This record gives sequence, structure tokens and C-alpha cells, in this order.
Amino acid sequence: MASDTLDATFAALADPTRRAILARLAQGEATVMELAAPFAMSQPGVSKHLRVLERAGLISRGRDAQRRPCRLEATRLKTAMDWLADYRSYWEESYQRLDDLLGELEAGTSGAGEREVR
Amino acid sequence: MASDTLDATFAALADPTRRAILARLAQGEATVMELAAPFAMSQPGVSKHLRVLERAGLISRGRDAQRRPCRLEATRLKTAMDWLADYRSYWEESYQRLDDLLGELEAGTSGAGEREVR
Repeated sequence: MASDTLDATFAALADPTRRAILARLAQGEATVMELAAPFAMSQPGVSKHLRVLERAGLISRGRDAQRRPCRLEATRLKTAMDWLADYRSYWEESYQRLDDLLGELEAGTSGAGEREVR
Repeated sequence: MASDTLDATFAALADPTRRAILARLAQGEATVMELAAPFAMSQPGVSKHLRVLERAGLISRGRDAQRRPCRLEATRLKTAMDWLADYRSYWEESYQRLDDLLGELEAGTSGAGEREVR
């Protein structure tokens, strides 16, 4: 997958309003007016975010000139997740190191406890 | 997880040089000089990218004042992947629709073939 696609996808996701718009569209199509309502944001403000999402291929717009309903296009999210999944072994290793450390601390604590009982 | 964390993580990932730096660090720690070498980029240019990655918590720097080796910190990548994973059913649905469409087209083609044989 082209690097440009990942650039655009990650950049589009780096904004809480745009992520909230995607979460809303996951529940079904919505017009700009419907999307603007919960955000206390002007329609032009929402439209600007929609253009970023559309350019990144994360949403598509209907052809009805009046409503132009927005729809989630999730396949680019898979592309982003596939890139991240390559690093799975590294964070699993980080969590394993943390588990080992906690295990050692716990073993040390219970050992101390036993000595107290004796 | 705070929305700010996702903002910083996705913004840091929206650049091909920064993604390449993470890929290099996945193979082991590296100094700024070692990281700059394959990119035909100045050390200050690489340092700027490293600051973005460090602020996003995607790398850490060693304490050795001379070398300050960079190290991959992968747990924030997991946070980003967890966010994306919530959309898995939507892209699976998209691929299913495509499969269904291809199945219908194939059935139509073989049907036409049968009619030709008759």
C-alpha cells in the first residue's frame, strides 16, 4: 500500500472530532447537518473535517446534491491497522517485561511475608 | 485512554520518515547519527522527527549525554491499534459485500456460458 495512503489516513485520524465523526458514521449514514448537531460546531467547520476524511478515503459522500449523506469507508482503517499489527511482538514484549517485573516484586513481597510469619 | 494520546500517536505516524525511523528502531536501539544515515537527511532534520516521536511516547532516549540512543516504545502503537480494531466488523462487511458481488458476477458468467453450450 502506498505510503501516501498511510500518511493521509493517520493524519485524518489525528483529530478527536474526525474520530467522533467516524464513530457516528459507524452507526449509519448521516448528513452534514446531522453530523454537526452533537459537536456544537458550525456546518462549515464540520464540512472541513469531512473533506479531510473524504480525501483520506475514510468516508464517501452520496450523490444526492441536497443531502450528500456521508458513509463510513472502513477499508483504509484496515490498511492502518495492518501497518500497526507488524509491531505487535514489540508491545507484547513490553508487557511481558512488565509482567516479569511484577512477578519478581510479588515473589519478593510474599517471601518477606513468609519470613515475618516464621 | 485520553484522546490527546491518540491525537499525538496518529499525528506522529502520519509521516513516512517517522514510520521508517520506527521500523529501524524495531531492529534495536540507534543513535541520531545512525538513524540519519539511510535517510540522506541532516541530523537536525532527524532530531526534529525524533522530538515528535518522543512527545508522542513512541520512542524513548537513553541518558548517555553523548549518544542518547533511541529506543522503540511500542505500547502506544497498541493503543492506536485498539482504537482501529473497533472498526474491524465494518471493513469485514465491506470485503464481504465485494465477495458477494464477485460471486454474483461469476455465477452470471458461468450461467451465460451454460446457455451458450445449450
